[in-house]
Amino acid sequence: MSRLVSLFTGQWADLKLEDMARKTKEFGYSGIELACWGDHFEVQKALNEPNYCKQKRDLLERNGLRCEAISAHLVGQAVCDIIDERHKLILPDYVWGDGKPEGVNKRAIQELKDTAKAAQKFGVEVVNGFTGSSIWHLLYSFPPVSQKMVDDGYKLFADRFNPILDEFKKCGVKFALEVHPTEIAFDIYSAEAALKAVNHREEFGFNFDPSHLHWQGVDPVEFIRAFPDRIYHVHIKDAITTLNGKTGILASHINFGDPRRGWDFRSPGRGSINFEEIIRALNHVGYKGPLSVEWEDSGMDREFGAKEASGFVRKLDFSPSGRAFDSAFDKAEQ
Amino acid sequence: MSRLVSLFTGQWADLKLEDMARKTKEFGYSGIELACWGDHFEVQKALNEPNYCKQKRDLLERNGLRCEAISAHLVGQAVCDIIDERHKLILPDYVWGDGKPEGVNKRAIQELKDTAKAAQKFGVEVVNGFTGSSIWHLLYSFPPVSQKMVDDGYKLFADRFNPILDEFKKCGVKFALEVHPTEIAFDIYSAEAALKAVNHREEFGFNFDPSHLHWQGVDPVEFIRAFPDRIYHVHIKDAITTLNGKTGILASHINFGDPRRGWDFRSPGRGSINFEEIIRALNHVGYKGPLSVEWEDSGMDREFGAKEASGFVRKLDFSPSGRAFDSAFDKAEQ
Amino acid sequence: MSRLVSLFTGQWADLKLEDMARKTKEFGYSGIELACWGDHFEVQKALNEPNYCKQKRDLLERNGLRCEAISAHLVGQAVCDIIDERHKLILPDYVWGDGKPEGVNKRAIQELKDTAKAAQKFGVEVVNGFTGSSIWHLLYSFPPVSQKMVDDGYKLFADRFNPILDEFKKCGVKFALEVHPTEIAFDIYSAEAALKAVNHREEFGFNFDPSHLHWQGVDPVEFIRAFPDRIYHVHIKDAITTLNGKTGILASHINFGDPRRGWDFRSPGRGSINFEEIIRALNHVGYKGPLSVEWEDSGMDREFGAKEASGFVRKLDFSPSGRAFDSAFDKAEQ
Amino acid sequence: MSRLVSLFTGQWADLKLEDMARKTKEFGYSGIELACWGDHFEVQKALNEPNYCKQKRDLLERNGLRCEAISAHLVGQAVCDIIDERHKLILPDYVWGDGKPEGVNKRAIQELKDTAKAAQKFGVEVVNGFTGSSIWHLLYSFPPVSQKMVDDGYKLFADRFNPILDEFKKCGVKFALEVHPTEIAFDIYSAEAALKAVNHREEFGFNFDPSHLHWQGVDPVEFIRAFPDRIYHVHIKDAITTLNGKTGILASHINFGDPRRGWDFRSPGRGSINFEEIIRALNHVGYKGPLSVEWEDSGMDREFGAKEASGFVRKLDFSPSGRAFDSAFDKAEQ
Amino acid sequence: MSRLVSLFTGQWADLKLEDMARKTKEFGYSGIELACWGDHFEVQKALNEPNYCKQKRDLLERNGLRCEAISAHLVGQAVCDIIDERHKLILPDYVWGDGKPEGVNKRAIQELKDTAKAAQKFGVEVVNGFTGSSIWHLLYSFPPVSQKMVDDGYKLFADRFNPILDEFKKCGVKFALEVHPTEIAFDIYSAEAALKAVNHREEFGFNFDPSHLHWQGVDPVEFIRAFPDRIYHVHIKDAITTLNGKTGILASHINFGDPRRGWDFRSPGRGSINFEEIIRALNHVGYKGPLSVEWEDSGMDREFGAKEASGFVRKLDFSPSGRAFDSAFDKAEQ
Amino acid sequence: MSRLVSLFTGQWADLKLEDMARKTKEFGYSGIELACWGDHFEVQKALNEPNYCKQKRDLLERNGLRCEAISAHLVGQAVCDIIDERHKLILPDYVWGDGKPEGVNKRAIQELKDTAKAAQKFGVEVVNGFTGSSIWHLLYSFPPVSQKMVDDGYKLFADRFNPILDEFKKCGVKFALEVHPTEIAFDIYSAEAALKAVNHREEFGFNFDPSHLHWQGVDPVEFIRAFPDRIYHVHIKDAITTLNGKTGILASHINFGDPRRGWDFRSPGRGSINFEEIIRALNHVGYKGPLSVEWEDSGMDREFGAKEASGFVRKLDFSPSGRAFDSAFDKAEQ
Repeated sequence: MSRLVSLFTGQWADLKLEDMARKTKEFGYSGIELACWGDHFEVQKALNEPNYCKQKRDLLERNGLRCEAISAHLVGQAVCDIIDERHKLILPDYVWGDGKPEGVNKRAIQELKDTAKAAQKFGVEVVNGFTGSSIWHLLYSFPPVSQKMVDDGYKLFADRFNPILDEFKKCGVKFALEVHPTEIAFDIYSAEAALKAVNHREEFGFNFDPSHLHWQGVDPVEFIRAFPDRIYHVHIKDAITTLNGKTGILASHINFGDPRRGWDFRSPGRGSINFEEIIRALNHVGYKGPLSVEWEDSGMDREFGAKEASGFVRKLDFSPSGRAFDSAFDKAEQ
Repeated sequence: MSRLVSLFTGQWADLKLEDMARKTKEFGYSGIELACWGDHFEVQKALNEPNYCKQKRDLLERNGLRCEAISAHLVGQAVCDIIDERHKLILPDYVWGDGKPEGVNKRAIQELKDTAKAAQKFGVEVVNGFTGSSIWHLLYSFPPVSQKMVDDGYKLFADRFNPILDEFKKCGVKFALEVHPTEIAFDIYSAEAALKAVNHREEFGFNFDPSHLHWQGVDPVEFIRAFPDRIYHVHIKDAITTLNGKTGILASHINFGDPRRGWDFRSPGRGSINFEEIIRALNHVGYKGPLSVEWEDSGMDREFGAKEASGFVRKLDFSPSGRAFDSAFDKAEQ
Repeated sequence: MSRLVSLFTGQWADLKLEDMARKTKEFGYSGIELACWGDHFEVQKALNEPNYCKQKRDLLERNGLRCEAISAHLVGQAVCDIIDERHKLILPDYVWGDGKPEGVNKRAIQELKDTAKAAQKFGVEVVNGFTGSSIWHLLYSFPPVSQKMVDDGYKLFADRFNPILDEFKKCGVKFALEVHPTEIAFDIYSAEAALKAVNHREEFGFNFDPSHLHWQGVDPVEFIRAFPDRIYHVHIKDAITTLNGKTGILASHINFGDPRRGWDFRSPGRGSINFEEIIRALNHVGYKGPLSVEWEDSGMDREFGAKEASGFVRKLDFSPSGRAFDSAFDKAEQ
Repeated sequence: MSRLVSLFTGQWADLKLEDMARKTKEFGYSGIELACWGDHFEVQKALNEPNYCKQKRDLLERNGLRCEAISAHLVGQAVCDIIDERHKLILPDYVWGDGKPEGVNKRAIQELKDTAKAAQKFGVEVVNGFTGSSIWHLLYSFPPVSQKMVDDGYKLFADRFNPILDEFKKCGVKFALEVHPTEIAFDIYSAEAALKAVNHREEFGFNFDPSHLHWQGVDPVEFIRAFPDRIYHVHIKDAITTLNGKTGILASHINFGDPRRGWDFRSPGRGSINFEEIIRALNHVGYKGPLSVEWEDSGMDREFGAKEASGFVRKLDFSPSGRAFDSAFDKAEQ
Repeated sequence: MSRLVSLFTGQWADLKLEDMARKTKEFGYSGIELACWGDHFEVQKALNEPNYCKQKRDLLERNGLRCEAISAHLVGQAVCDIIDERHKLILPDYVWGDGKPEGVNKRAIQELKDTAKAAQKFGVEVVNGFTGSSIWHLLYSFPPVSQKMVDDGYKLFADRFNPILDEFKKCGVKFALEVHPTEIAFDIYSAEAALKAVNHREEFGFNFDPSHLHWQGVDPVEFIRAFPDRIYHVHIKDAITTLNGKTGILASHINFGDPRRGWDFRSPGRGSINFEEIIRALNHVGYKGPLSVEWEDSGMDREFGAKEASGFVRKLDFSPSGRAFDSAFDKAEQ
Repeated sequence: MSRLVSLFTGQWADLKLEDMARKTKEFGYSGIELACWGDHFEVQKALNEPNYCKQKRDLLERNGLRCEAISAHLVGQAVCDIIDERHKLILPDYVWGDGKPEGVNKRAIQELKDTAKAAQKFGVEVVNGFTGSSIWHLLYSFPPVSQKMVDDGYKLFADRFNPILDEFKKCGVKFALEVHPTEIAFDIYSAEAALKAVNHREEFGFNFDPSHLHWQGVDPVEFIRAFPDRIYHVHIKDAITTLNGKTGILASHINFGDPRRGWDFRSPGRGSINFEEIIRALNHVGYKGPLSVEWEDSGMDREFGAKEASGFVRKLDFSPSGRAFDSAFDKAEQ
């Protein structure tokens, strides 16, 4: 199938886009998913500088790259999160401001609305991103968590995102939440709850990324089957569980890349995700968008890995059948 | 082996101890592990009322029950936790006070010191409990969590618990942390870090409870082997993973007892914990304390379950061998 | 839970009911599920002999047995089946008649209607049974089977069973299909299709028997969850897969009890069905009817097995919890 | 090893052989296994038109293709089957005739004899095919199936195939049954029974196709070991079981390609068959014939798949060792 | 089934038989398998003291114990073994003599012949035992082992055992080799080779003990199926593999009972052997002899364990069915 | 990563090095690990012929091959082994001499010392090899093996190897034991014991070869983690367990390549070793030496296999990451 094989630039924002675009092509990709940080895609410049979007497009074209989605994970995270010092490092100064939580949340909301406008101007129909969550810290129900506390978390998400999604609707752009721990939705049932909270409005769907589901024990294929019409974008990212009796799935407050963790991310094809079944499920629900590599593997050189990954994805992708099984046995078809 | 088979009263505090003790005996137990809530064991009364401890002991004796440990989970949770509305429900009024976090933490510290004194007075050498954690909400490293933030959490734990443990030392009592999500230690490597934070002082060890380890993918036997001299108490509690492709191990903000969760607690013997290997490991490290049932199973009547559980534990327990294998083949021994 | 533990008499019709009832009690059962063959429950006598039903009830009462369901598997099989010589052996002479297929089908329909009336007269609200199937021989789609051929099979089922179910409705009795190979429904999706074919009318539901699902790879718990309001009766019967590389799941035209088969039935508790999860699922959907042992195990003496099975079922059954988890941690409940 | 890598044309009979041969070469194959339907290999023309066989050979040679076997699955199916409307679609008009079962069976027998003659004339030594079965509908033993009914099925097979095999013997050609559901042999033990029914005569052996064994739980390697001297031809075709608790291995009367099935066919290398062990087993028994891809995958474009498959098979095949392990450690060999 | 449930006394030879017999009864056994060491059964006294056998029988009878087999493992080991210092500890002084290997082998052969005579005199038809092996040290083929060296080992076994078995034949007694590492047969294929070496003579069969097969990865049920007519005696002994990534199946020269081993013996029912399938296989081949517990578990008190084991075996054993499945569906049988 | 991909010549000593070097290059390798047998690397000639080492180096260079290690498995085996006829075949005549065990051991010790000198002269820093073992025949503890007998085995190893290692130290060369059955160390715990026996002196480490660990159930990754600073060389060799119920892990005295064995060696990538995790573990401990293919697969042509293997290893190897995960999310790095 001629799905676009692209690379997400989020983990490469230490590089200028000019370098990144060249490398992306060299790694073997035909597309690029621009992060809204570093100089890859700057929302306010896109809105305020007349030629910004065109210049970016020209740069990508010179490198033979298409772009069908941009990504706003970092600012999205600040919409529903309870703000703390960690957010300062990942937010633009004008969103962080004085760092008072209420103000940060508000400015993040505004920035996400602006991102929709910038996406429209740049000519992409999908913005991938995070939502943050005000109830993530209640993950394990002790001290006992009441149903109301959980419900309030989904309500706050709806209250803050509905105005954002109104803007997305106006711009003809969709918001694709990457279902992920620390977000309002991190597995199938929390994704159901999030969809319900915003009344299943069409502007809200998912950036399907199997790596976050796999280690939780959730079958990524079941996710696709549960939300066949909400797969707005796809990340190709692998993961592995490394449980050996001593490691734990909650990972012991130990960072990625340490063998004492019970799971980790892996370069595509080097983890234990069954991408074959994922492609078949995507074919089945008719997903036609990009397969975008989000490359993260703490144990591998990233340039080696990104290159290998483009080949892996190209080999993986294929078209569904256009004809019925065994039809050639029928004389009428011979 | 003649280990004490006891029942922990934490989940039965809606009953008066008088009723609870009678039932405990009827359920088939020889021991009881008193919770420091409800009227089961009240720390301030124990310290201030002259006959309190004796009356409790008499009550237990009348019911043929021994008591070798008391449990202070709820107040312990408030020592390191970031306090919120959930703590109000589980703390005594005099600890909660005006609910201002700093004051709650301080009063919880004091109450835990008092618990050590009360334990000494009551004649038990182990207080089981929780520690809370100031870094639980940083569980998943996004937004990125620095090593310093994690280190600070262990340091805060040490700063608050060292004075408490000084009091325990003075009283000749040990504090046994139930390794558990939302606590400073929730798996093997976080338990290592916690021990290191308090310099492996002897007053600090563990209330081994396999149910919290199993669903995380941690083999409870490896925990015992990792800390052979720190198993100060044992809870018998079962759990099961119910991953079926749709459910997730993080449980979707859904409460216990719902089949959409990826794991749940179970009445002992009805989950998937391998207690046989646990008993052998406990025999191997020489643990001689109680096997105390903490009964939690949202899908079963608790009185039916508690009764069944006492039989399960009695059948489970056995003594190690006192002689070498194959020695009877040696003529010299015949 | 006080669910009735009963024994289905279908495999014991070589015994007179008088003997069977005595044995059933001796085996440890409190209930009996009468087969409509042998002298256990004769439909035409029940309708035509004034005291027949009362005498049967008296006999059961003398043996301390309740009866909440009767079973009409054999005649039900002849409703939709393509009739051949095998049916002669299992049908009453007056249903078999001259054995011409069309007539046998018609007389089987009439007999099943009569069974509803007899059930009403006898005082049971459930008739368990089979439906037969006109499309079972099309199981594997070669030579290629058109969708129409399959649809016709479900349609024929509906055409023949709707009049039967009208009679059941009139009598206030339900028909519980034992989902089973050779019937119109043999797994979850064929059960869905069957329900759809009769417009989900309430008179039609299922006699849940996990043994027929297990070896097909269907999780019996998923069946219960798929049809929570259609579990009208439950059979306790175990099965095991004995695949070893040489045996096959289709069983090589080899009869039960031969180790060359890839699966077989087993006495309850001696196969690989997870009854623990089944009881929890039945508790969850609120099933309150009998747990009726259908005892079949080609490798075990049936009297030994039937006795063991009653103990197994009694130990298995338990009541769900009546209270919320962790509620005892709440001061308000103490 | 220089085994012929060929493609079976059965599923491509909607294409003229001229096109098919060109594509087969383009897909990367060196051989072709011609189906006796469409215009690929027409038995009566081969017998009656003087240049037919030579023209076919010329066509194949022009495309650089060898042909070592032809296949007569469809007409073979009609030899033992109970004939119904499905057979009309797959049989030549002159075999179907008026469609009266007895006549169809007879004409199918004659056509299969003629196929042996045509094979001899065309210069191939193996005809792959099906046998049909008069007892397939008795697969599950309810209503109870007597041993005699099963025995009669094997006897009918022998009665109808012995005369056919006499003709094969005369022509120096072997008949290779593709062991498959709906045939007289569909797993190891039914294959044993079929061999026994024809007294293990040499003209009768198997077209080994692992895809039909795998989902039944039969290890294809055990099949090869069970019949080391009867592997007359090999199909490379993959399959996968997709059991997830809801799907069933009997597949719910649902057609191939639907995710609600419990198993399906897959393009070689994309299923779960262990071809590595199969090649080793084929090496061990000395099989030297073609590895012929029978391409069926309802979820993939067939041209994409057929091309990928030729590469897969080439990579898979290898020669056994010609020397003893560790012999280089022996000075005498140095 | 009324199979004799007995206890093998080999591991209890530090106790006088008088004590052992009393305990055996108290543990719940009906039978006893006497070891030919300690004072349990002394071959030379049995042959030379007129009342020895009768006195032993009387002692057993007073304790309500039957004896159907005696065991000569230790002296049997010295028949084919390459003798070293280890044998001195386990052999009677008169067999060890001066310890020169050739002489030890010869005296062991004589003692085993005498054991057959003593068995006849005592009235048992089976002598269990070991053979030793002259090729055990060649287990791993490095330095390269020639086929001749292996063949010579089986030949030496035949040369030494044929005269022994002649004596057994004369006495009407069978020798049952306990297939076991360090013996001439330790798994299925070496047992085949051993049987072949002695021309399948009837005096030579097996004492089936699943514990030695299980950890080698051999399915005990396959052993029974491979040698259906050579199961002369059965040991009930459990084992477990404790592979965790660090432990190894060859056990690192570390003795039983150490958790660093990759496998160990276990009290029956506390390991991972599937005794259910074993009983069914024994029923299938018609084995009617004792189920004799050989109790070894380095982690459990032996008296606790031996008692538990008798209950386990009684619960395990059951009779096969005497009738055909589903026969009650047939009117003719009703 | 630019690790050297080399081929070990041990299994190719029937070829002259001149041929072997040419083939090695043609197979796709950049390096070669020379066996000290055949004419590949002759220790005495290296010490005594002035140009020997240079001529060998020149030969390798002409073929574009580097050499970083030589291997002395055969003579090493004779250091601790109990000598028998098998050793004659694998030892040089001047080491075997008259074959009297004591003399063979002594001459093997001297030859290994000389090998260190030759290695120094040739310019390699690692000699791979075996140690033999005087206690291998005591593998299974029956007749009972005392701890002293095991300890004596390790002591003998130390007594014989310490003088050898003194010479290695003097030469600046390391001895890398290939942990392997029949050696003093064959799994993790025996490797621990061996290291302890020589006081962890630096001259003694391991030639890590996962194939010998895998079938024993030992995770090769755990071996690397257990001895992070002792991985002096790495063999790439695959293995597979082929347990099917009938085969056993001890392999029945049956030679490699026979399907009746429970495990066997395999060409790299065609067994079941997880090399991905091994590379990550090697990266983690900082191993920078060769990845040297020891090619053994009794079921495959060795030239086909050796060529395929070089490609497999090149694809497998990769560099670790040089940067922290998620660092690109930090503004400070953008």
